[in-house]
Amino acid sequence: MTLETKPFSAAEIAQLRDDTPGVSHRIHLNNAGAALMPTPVVAAVTDYLNREAQIGGYETKAERSEQIEGVYSSVARLVGAAPDEIALAENATVAWQWAFYAQSFKPGDRILTTTAEYAANYLAYLQVAKRTGAVIEIIPDGADGLLDPDALDRIIDDRTRLIAITWVPTNGGLVNPAHAVGKVARRHGIPYLLDACQAVGQMPVDVEAIGCDMLAATGRKFLRGPRGTGFLYMRRELIERTEPAMIDMFGAEWAGANQYTLRSDARRFETWESDYAARVGLGTAVDYALSIGLERIEQRSRSLATQLRSGLAAIDGVTTYDVGQDPVAIVTFTVHGREASDIAAALSKQGINVSVSRPTSTPIDSTKRGLDALVRASPHYYNTTEEIDRTIAAVANKSD
Amino acid sequence: MTLETKPFSAAEIAQLRDDTPGVSHRIHLNNAGAALMPTPVVAAVTDYLNREAQIGGYETKAERSEQIEGVYSSVARLVGAAPDEIALAENATVAWQWAFYAQSFKPGDRILTTTAEYAANYLAYLQVAKRTGAVIEIIPDGADGLLDPDALDRIIDDRTRLIAITWVPTNGGLVNPAHAVGKVARRHGIPYLLDACQAVGQMPVDVEAIGCDMLAATGRKFLRGPRGTGFLYMRRELIERTEPAMIDMFGAEWAGANQYTLRSDARRFETWESDYAARVGLGTAVDYALSIGLERIEQRSRSLATQLRSGLAAIDGVTTYDVGQDPVAIVTFTVHGREASDIAAALSKQGINVSVSRPTSTPIDSTKRGLDALVRASPHYYNTTEEIDRTIAAVANKSD
Repeated sequence: MTLETKPFSAAEIAQLRDDTPGVSHRIHLNNAGAALMPTPVVAAVTDYLNREAQIGGYETKAERSEQIEGVYSSVARLVGAAPDEIALAENATVAWQWAFYAQSFKPGDRILTTTAEYAANYLAYLQVAKRTGAVIEIIPDGADGLLDPDALDRIIDDRTRLIAITWVPTNGGLVNPAHAVGKVARRHGIPYLLDACQAVGQMPVDVEAIGCDMLAATGRKFLRGPRGTGFLYMRRELIERTEPAMIDMFGAEWAGANQYTLRSDARRFETWESDYAARVGLGTAVDYALSIGLERIEQRSRSLATQLRSGLAAIDGVTTYDVGQDPVAIVTFTVHGREASDIAAALSKQGINVSVSRPTSTPIDSTKRGLDALVRASPHYYNTTEEIDRTIAAVANKSD
Repeated sequence: MTLETKPFSAAEIAQLRDDTPGVSHRIHLNNAGAALMPTPVVAAVTDYLNREAQIGGYETKAERSEQIEGVYSSVARLVGAAPDEIALAENATVAWQWAFYAQSFKPGDRILTTTAEYAANYLAYLQVAKRTGAVIEIIPDGADGLLDPDALDRIIDDRTRLIAITWVPTNGGLVNPAHAVGKVARRHGIPYLLDACQAVGQMPVDVEAIGCDMLAATGRKFLRGPRGTGFLYMRRELIERTEPAMIDMFGAEWAGANQYTLRSDARRFETWESDYAARVGLGTAVDYALSIGLERIEQRSRSLATQLRSGLAAIDGVTTYDVGQDPVAIVTFTVHGREASDIAAALSKQGINVSVSRPTSTPIDSTKRGLDALVRASPHYYNTTEEIDRTIAAVANKSD
């Protein structure tokens, strides 16, 4: 957030909501799950699909090659990278796996991660640890509950092979100090893989400022893109020395005599065939977010989340769980004596979309804090203060 | 093909073409690349997307869970498998990689493949051979140019770890004897991975009759599904003893104490997030093909290909390249003195979609036969004999 961030006018919010057919159906507070796509995104996907039905899939790709190439440029702009450092993926997990499973580990090599790590990533660490003898260690948290970069600095040794953390977890508004981790990682020359799924589209992301070497994110969450889209950023110097765990004839080329050569850009991780319709939807979503401005998006979504969090916390019997001094637009809570899934179902009946964050999604944190299932409400800039008030009132009603 | 296969009536072809908006724009002979989607497929995808925009992505998935689950059943029906033996993928290569990279190899273990093998698969063999010391061997062809199952039988020994072949290659109408290979593989107890990309949607596929253990295919080719879809079949007994090369929290579950358990069905290979809109499009495409009947589809597309192939072969200066006595609906040819890409571009200007098959797509076969780039024309059941005649005339015109 910068001081000069311009607030949204009422007219602008009205315009953004006009762009969002879903707001007339639901109070959508599940943006950390999948946000409501704006009309231009749906239009881009359906237009592309219809063109494919008219002239053919390969023929449309040839006709729209500039638009497709532009998706890489848009994503690169979004994260402050160069287009050749971007690979487009089916989802963030696949993008993350491309980066992670391409690393090599020897017995005793250390993978450093964080309390808030996403379960999918942690499961991959467990598999690789079992396979290679690498060990997984949790970077200590500070008193504020966030990863402590000084502690990270102290525990790094010459067996440390990878720092891989989640920036914003799936189960709350915590924001790990991704930039401070980047400084430590660079100082020690340790590869740094950042899961930015819940950050991208919600706040400015600049891989240079962060200092990460690899970053994976999804299209469907705060970016408001279609499902089935994601991307990987990999720093150029790293690409050249990273062989994908799996290859095909898009990322690699037959070089005769039973040899192959890998592409020189990040697309060496991709496979030949893709859902180009979804990709142009992703590009449209990225351009849409950039045209609004990520600083402004962060400011407003954070402000709505603060309104929601404090409103909920003031209700008798409601507990909120977001860690840190300045949490972002993911609010988790429970209502005393009620199952999280019951609360979510009851809110859904009143037209309010929330989700349930289960302990299996964040095993380390849930074990540490003894968390059960939490209700998760994640507003976005296109929500309104009235929607937040109605949600607070609806929860208050459930807690009676 | 069975004797009782009912031919298509003129009215039925007219109806199928009414369902296919592309036929009024192009003569589409690029079905081996990506077929023209019929209206119900595009409608299923766009309807799903619009619903996501209205009520949210997770909420639509919950609402449409039966439809989504039905895609597995449809695909299972298409290949004669059970739904729990099917995993849905972003594309056929990913599906194939799930199966192949989950196999383990020791130095000297043999991977047996075929002359017609698709380059993407062959590149993966090269990578795994480099990584593990496994060796790749080409199963000898018979006099007819097809893989010789008797030769396969003879070369299998106790170091043979995998038989992995392409059924119908990307560069011609050759049909490898997939069923005979299955008999040999079963007799020796060797895992058998079949790339059925160009077969599925074009002909009946029955994994039991074939005897394959794993089969990968795409949605966009003869199946007429959306781009960005594919699937893996894996025989139930094999699933349980096959750990995916990569895992996430869809295929695996945190089981406490740094343990994980894998799903018991083929979805252990999938990741959590998917393009559900494209998936319901795939399901619709499969149901559409099944409702027409794969025997009938094969008969008509093969008959149109025969018309095209013999018409082209009769033109002075045109050479066709399809191997075998009874090739299917992929016709490759060259025009003396003209580049394949020039011919494709010239046909495109006349509204005829074909593609170019390059030697890098089929390195073993192209090396063996000394092939350069070939023009590839691949008709489907919704094409007409008039379209084929016009294509032959257009090529004849180019060869002057």
